[in-house]
Amino acid sequence: MTAAETETEGDFKLYAIEKYHANVEPFYLPISDEVELFAAAFQQRIPVLLKGPTGVGKTRFVEYMAWKMGRPLTVVKKGSPGDGEEGEATEALPLVTVACHEDLTGSDLVGRYLLEGGETKWIDGPLTRAVKAGAICYLDEVVEARKDTTVLIHPLTDHRRILPMEKKGQLLEAAEGFLLVISYNPGYQSALKDLKHSTRQRFISIDFGHPPKEIEAQIIVHESGIDSQTAESLAKLGEKVRNLKEHGLSEGVSTRLLIYAGRLIEQGISARRACQVAVVWALTDDLDVQRSIEEVVSAIFE
Amino acid sequence: MTAAETETEGDFKLYAIEKYHANVEPFYLPISDEVELFAAAFQQRIPVLLKGPTGVGKTRFVEYMAWKMGRPLTVVKKGSPGDGEEGEATEALPLVTVACHEDLTGSDLVGRYLLEGGETKWIDGPLTRAVKAGAICYLDEVVEARKDTTVLIHPLTDHRRILPMEKKGQLLEAAEGFLLVISYNPGYQSALKDLKHSTRQRFISIDFGHPPKEIEAQIIVHESGIDSQTAESLAKLGEKVRNLKEHGLSEGVSTRLLIYAGRLIEQGISARRACQVAVVWALTDDLDVQRSIEEVVSAIFE
Amino acid sequence: MTAAETETEGDFKLYAIEKYHANVEPFYLPISDEVELFAAAFQQRIPVLLKGPTGVGKTRFVEYMAWKMGRPLTVVKKGSPGDGEEGEATEALPLVTVACHEDLTGSDLVGRYLLEGGETKWIDGPLTRAVKAGAICYLDEVVEARKDTTVLIHPLTDHRRILPMEKKGQLLEAAEGFLLVISYNPGYQSALKDLKHSTRQRFISIDFGHPPKEIEAQIIVHESGIDSQTAESLAKLGEKVRNLKEHGLSEGVSTRLLIYAGRLIEQGISARRACQVAVVWALTDDLDVQRSIEEVVSAIFE
Amino acid sequence: MTAAETETEGDFKLYAIEKYHANVEPFYLPISDEVELFAAAFQQRIPVLLKGPTGVGKTRFVEYMAWKMGRPLTVVKKGSPGDGEEGEATEALPLVTVACHEDLTGSDLVGRYLLEGGETKWIDGPLTRAVKAGAICYLDEVVEARKDTTVLIHPLTDHRRILPMEKKGQLLEAAEGFLLVISYNPGYQSALKDLKHSTRQRFISIDFGHPPKEIEAQIIVHESGIDSQTAESLAKLGEKVRNLKEHGLSEGVSTRLLIYAGRLIEQGISARRACQVAVVWALTDDLDVQRSIEEVVSAIFE
Amino acid sequence: MTAAETETEGDFKLYAIEKYHANVEPFYLPISDEVELFAAAFQQRIPVLLKGPTGVGKTRFVEYMAWKMGRPLTVVKKGSPGDGEEGEATEALPLVTVACHEDLTGSDLVGRYLLEGGETKWIDGPLTRAVKAGAICYLDEVVEARKDTTVLIHPLTDHRRILPMEKKGQLLEAAEGFLLVISYNPGYQSALKDLKHSTRQRFISIDFGHPPKEIEAQIIVHESGIDSQTAESLAKLGEKVRNLKEHGLSEGVSTRLLIYAGRLIEQGISARRACQVAVVWALTDDLDVQRSIEEVVSAIFE
Amino acid sequence: MTAAETETEGDFKLYAIEKYHANVEPFYLPISDEVELFAAAFQQRIPVLLKGPTGVGKTRFVEYMAWKMGRPLTVVKKGSPGDGEEGEATEALPLVTVACHEDLTGSDLVGRYLLEGGETKWIDGPLTRAVKAGAICYLDEVVEARKDTTVLIHPLTDHRRILPMEKKGQLLEAAEGFLLVISYNPGYQSALKDLKHSTRQRFISIDFGHPPKEIEAQIIVHESGIDSQTAESLAKLGEKVRNLKEHGLSEGVSTRLLIYAGRLIEQGISARRACQVAVVWALTDDLDVQRSIEEVVSAIFE
Repeated sequence: MTAAETETEGDFKLYAIEKYHANVEPFYLPISDEVELFAAAFQQRIPVLLKGPTGVGKTRFVEYMAWKMGRPLTVVKKGSPGDGEEGEATEALPLVTVACHEDLTGSDLVGRYLLEGGETKWIDGPLTRAVKAGAICYLDEVVEARKDTTVLIHPLTDHRRILPMEKKGQLLEAAEGFLLVISYNPGYQSALKDLKHSTRQRFISIDFGHPPKEIEAQIIVHESGIDSQTAESLAKLGEKVRNLKEHGLSEGVSTRLLIYAGRLIEQGISARRACQVAVVWALTDDLDVQRSIEEVVSAIFE
Repeated sequence: MTAAETETEGDFKLYAIEKYHANVEPFYLPISDEVELFAAAFQQRIPVLLKGPTGVGKTRFVEYMAWKMGRPLTVVKKGSPGDGEEGEATEALPLVTVACHEDLTGSDLVGRYLLEGGETKWIDGPLTRAVKAGAICYLDEVVEARKDTTVLIHPLTDHRRILPMEKKGQLLEAAEGFLLVISYNPGYQSALKDLKHSTRQRFISIDFGHPPKEIEAQIIVHESGIDSQTAESLAKLGEKVRNLKEHGLSEGVSTRLLIYAGRLIEQGISARRACQVAVVWALTDDLDVQRSIEEVVSAIFE
Repeated sequence: MTAAETETEGDFKLYAIEKYHANVEPFYLPISDEVELFAAAFQQRIPVLLKGPTGVGKTRFVEYMAWKMGRPLTVVKKGSPGDGEEGEATEALPLVTVACHEDLTGSDLVGRYLLEGGETKWIDGPLTRAVKAGAICYLDEVVEARKDTTVLIHPLTDHRRILPMEKKGQLLEAAEGFLLVISYNPGYQSALKDLKHSTRQRFISIDFGHPPKEIEAQIIVHESGIDSQTAESLAKLGEKVRNLKEHGLSEGVSTRLLIYAGRLIEQGISARRACQVAVVWALTDDLDVQRSIEEVVSAIFE
Repeated sequence: MTAAETETEGDFKLYAIEKYHANVEPFYLPISDEVELFAAAFQQRIPVLLKGPTGVGKTRFVEYMAWKMGRPLTVVKKGSPGDGEEGEATEALPLVTVACHEDLTGSDLVGRYLLEGGETKWIDGPLTRAVKAGAICYLDEVVEARKDTTVLIHPLTDHRRILPMEKKGQLLEAAEGFLLVISYNPGYQSALKDLKHSTRQRFISIDFGHPPKEIEAQIIVHESGIDSQTAESLAKLGEKVRNLKEHGLSEGVSTRLLIYAGRLIEQGISARRACQVAVVWALTDDLDVQRSIEEVVSAIFE
Repeated sequence: MTAAETETEGDFKLYAIEKYHANVEPFYLPISDEVELFAAAFQQRIPVLLKGPTGVGKTRFVEYMAWKMGRPLTVVKKGSPGDGEEGEATEALPLVTVACHEDLTGSDLVGRYLLEGGETKWIDGPLTRAVKAGAICYLDEVVEARKDTTVLIHPLTDHRRILPMEKKGQLLEAAEGFLLVISYNPGYQSALKDLKHSTRQRFISIDFGHPPKEIEAQIIVHESGIDSQTAESLAKLGEKVRNLKEHGLSEGVSTRLLIYAGRLIEQGISARRACQVAVVWALTDDLDVQRSIEEVVSAIFE
Repeated sequence: MTAAETETEGDFKLYAIEKYHANVEPFYLPISDEVELFAAAFQQRIPVLLKGPTGVGKTRFVEYMAWKMGRPLTVVKKGSPGDGEEGEATEALPLVTVACHEDLTGSDLVGRYLLEGGETKWIDGPLTRAVKAGAICYLDEVVEARKDTTVLIHPLTDHRRILPMEKKGQLLEAAEGFLLVISYNPGYQSALKDLKHSTRQRFISIDFGHPPKEIEAQIIVHESGIDSQTAESLAKLGEKVRNLKEHGLSEGVSTRLLIYAGRLIEQGISARRACQVAVVWALTDDLDVQRSIEEVVSAIFE
């Protein structure tokens, strides 16, 4: 993924978090009207919750929308749900992504004081940077974070659009482009009930599922470089494995793993062995479930 | 929300927390005599507890009362429960809002020492700032906070009106305008029993419920810009969904979500799709409950 | 409450914790011989435990006794339980109050090192300040505090009268006027058993209950300014509500809430509405219990 | 308790912890051969565990032994269990007492680094001070402390007599007079099982019980100043209350509370009222048990 | 293990973590096509999960692959699963190994600020060093680590190949050679379910089991220096003990313990005694299980 | 225990941890071939686990072996299990002992940064000091430590012999003499299962039990100075008490307590009283078990 480069030493590159954005249109194939819904919400600055299982493309979708909503602001005409022709955007919106986890605190998002040159200096956290830069801020799996983080986002998601920075004794009013997007995976039931109604009812909700077989095959071809026929076989495998879900598989196979299989095949590994290491073993340690999936693999790649 | 501006860089604005106040009268439609009750309590500096479900307008009400109680002090005549004619206030009271969470400590509210230029310097927390500025201090969902915070507010809520700043070895006597307001949501039962009687019996309690259909429709029109008829349909939807509560819905739909639906419709999304993403999916992940709400949506927006 | 003022900025006032004391005799109506018992204990420097429910006046009593025990030391004649005639005290004893909570540590009470001007400087905590100043130190709801605090008070409550300041490697011998007073609420059963016998058996214990109806009415008149008749009605309400205790009310109504009701009535709110917000809703969220209390209110204020 | 004074400001006094010792012989009446056993253990530098209920005089006993074992070292002749005639000691051994609690860590005992004048400086903890000064170190209720403390004392209690100061990368060999004494109260069963065998089997164990009635009466006379007859009545009360133990009283009354009662009587409070606040209410909140004890009080002080 | 030396004092040697690599080919005997699978994944930069029991050689395998994948980059020809003939590599890839544990945090991996010379200086953690150096980063038993670590590795394992350094407000793009390898032991069931699907589905998975008897004997000879016959007996012992697994042994014997036995025999200890201390007692404290294993030992080494 | 002295103030002595070693041969009577087994493991640098109950002499054994393995390195001839004649060692190996506990972290073992003179300076922990000095490092009751410590010792116990110092970004290669020795007490069952197989299978295991009666009597004579006959009686007491183990005694009496009894007898205390305080009360608080042991005491010392 390309981005505005800010520093390079040796082989690696360093960017400021709030400068990160795509330079070319990210590859994304819409499944339904999710692009129009997000665009309407963005115009109204209504916060958005993306709901769906692992590896279904939520992160890629946000990258794509940050590109679509870029400056000069794309005008979405009423009644004409777009199909990609709004190509006049010249710069993507910056996108600040924070993968949440159970140790993530409010200070991690807002910022903290740091000693520098004998003085304490305030360092903005990623949320503050997004609020100032007018970026889209994507809090991935927000229910995992500590409770003080959800409280922080409340005044950012109502008419106030402010971020309280209590340690500095200040309030920060969001820049114009700022929008908050969060995601969660309803498959993790325990986490689900942790998203309190006072937080949840601040977002509209867009549901994501696995792409249909034809679209998934196109994605596999694009991402792994293998031929269409093998890609279609892998997509068929994906569909069948997801139907095994009620047989002890806690979550279906992601498109990502199917792409891995494609890339190993491209590298010269046999299709059945590639599916074994990239799909069967990667999905489960249960020997019975492994056997069921291997039967599906054998049926497809005889 | 406008406020006394103190700093601007680029697109965003920064305010001192204790300077935040409305410049124009916040939009608020009273449901009962809650305005008179709060005004009487404010005159007597009796701390106030606001009780009610998510999204019912408690935060907006406090903003409105801070505006109404502004300097020069509004005289509420005995026996004449006001209806808004006390418009002679020229400046709203400052309003310091703290959204409480389970990691919020007493130091977060009172302040802490910070190293600056080789010396430690005391930085006032938001509660101390409110006590000094004579602001209304609104502790939202106070039962969520750590126990040391409730203890802090005890001497602020009796005849002493003092804030102990133990780390500084000092007592702070509240400025004249200071009033403590707290809220909680009785729907969260576990939290409820955490508010000890020694804390609870320091507040009078004002109950909030969802607004009646006619008032809610007016609010939706004002906040989303859609026509009255659609607003009335959305208000009807709200009422019906709240009656579904005993069918597995842990909390009724908030006015906020109905406004979101209105704004998506205003943006060109069809009414049923707008209600699906802003109400149905936003409220619940339970497929059965989703189906029940969708039937209500279909009946209203055929 | 007036006190030796040490600093003033704008509207608020700042005092050193160990300088805080009453300038006029606090209003306190004795119920039994609690004044004589405390005076005898103070003469012998026997630590005192105050036991009783929420809002029964324990804090006010300690303020009153700090005023009574003031310098020059009041001589309590043997056998003549005083009734207030020892008015020759010219200055109240300083009173250091610490509201305990589950995060309160020994360091919070004793003190800690702080960086100042490139050097660490010891800052005395409130207990150390009280020990040095010869103040009465009142630890409110001490069982809530962390265990290391109870251990700290042990050598202060026996013949040694010393405070170990282990982080400084020093022992502090208490000044002459110092006395330790603690309180707890036996209604919180879980807390009760946390007060270990090795701590508990270091205090004599004075029990507090709600004042009889006649005394409570006098207090309400004094604190709210309403007429005697209304005050008597409110005191009657208090008595009846406390008798409802076995009907699901975890704790009886405090005198404080009755005073609140009186002050709202004084402000022009109708008596029944005032009792609703200051007593009924303030006491409980249980709809059945609310209804029982409202019936009592209706019977008294027809 | 007098001690080597090191600093005085105003009314209070400050001592270095390791300088604290008695200047006059502490008042202690031996019950059995505990004085001889401790002296023999001290001569052999065998660590000692004192076991017994609250308020039975364990702390006073250690103070007494520190005085008895003072320099020049008292020679205890074999076979002649002493009775106090070894009065030739001119200076008591210093006594470092640490009341243990569940937050007490190894660093609290050994020491820590502290920033001072721009440099970190090591500050010895009380155990290190005792090891260096050759003091008796008394860890009161050691089972309450964090586990890392018990590990610290292991090498101090075997042939090595060393204290590992791991943060400094050093080992400290104990000075000649050093002896470790710990205590615990077997009445706290949960604590008991926390003293691991690897720790416990490093101490000889001396058991303490309440003193017989005659000795207890002498102690009450000495400590409260009341006449012998009242003291004997109080001692009788003590004995009888301890026999009530199986009737719901978790621990018997301590001598300390009986002394409190005596001092209140000396101050002019009636005997029955004094026993009520110093014994009945101080011991228990259980109304039935209170009634049982009050009957005993009434029988003795008719 | 030799490595690029960076500092030597006295007898020991110090290296920078990201400079560590083998100078000679590590001894590794392939069991199946694991070398080809890993090489294909490395060419595609697909992250790899190694799954298998304790002591089965996962660490050694990663060392071996780091040597094999060294610069100039080994070209693995499609369709020709290599057998070691790609000897043209002149320098092994650096290998950064982090043994994960339940206290390992994201900061431990990414880095932290440190005060140096009056200023805070950022110190890169081992993961950051690996990302910058283009090393293979091996997170051993990653499920043991704190949850914030798994979140860190997400953007390193998809198309972004970036490491968010949130405390610095920067994103780091991985150098070309970087690959993430993780391991876990499916025998620890509790840990297993902690690896969330959103993490797990980012890796292909290679399973490891104990080597067959013939290969294990070769390894024992190579590592302990004993004769082939004894090595074969020890390998037979290994096989038989692993078959005892269902008789109460939670995990089979590792090759490492068999090598230990061989080395003790080489040192002159009798075979049966060597097997007792290196295998029987090392594996279990259960006396019955010990007896079963000793019978196997006796049967083999009569 | 004598040691290389590095600092002396007043009565006590301070050593660097990694300089500590015996100057004269520690008193140790071998029970079986444990000396030969340890010597063989040391020659091969195979890590050693010592398993056995409290007070059985594990610590003394490691001290003895550090003396035996001292430089110039003692050559243990194959096939000739030594009996002490390898007296040509002139200097004992240094021995770094760390008593583990549940709060012991990896940083405690490896080291940490410390501010000194305005700069942070790295301070090596005891494990790092042992690794650099080529000392034997003895981690006593290692299962008690935090999990991050066990992970630290993994690369020190395989072919790598390295210590990762992640906070410094460095790897430390062990000096030649370094050997890791750990111990645990299988009597603490809960702890046992905490030693993961991935750790456990890195050590050979030597079991320790209580010494036979004749050897124990010799030890008692040597350590307490009493006559052989009394020592034999005490050893007999030890044997009999250990047989009482199934009667409610969680762990048998240690040799150390028997020595304490001997020393008290030597000091003039009667044998039965000495056994009571040093054995009976020291072992248990259970009155029934106490009575059983006292019967054994009476039978032996009539």
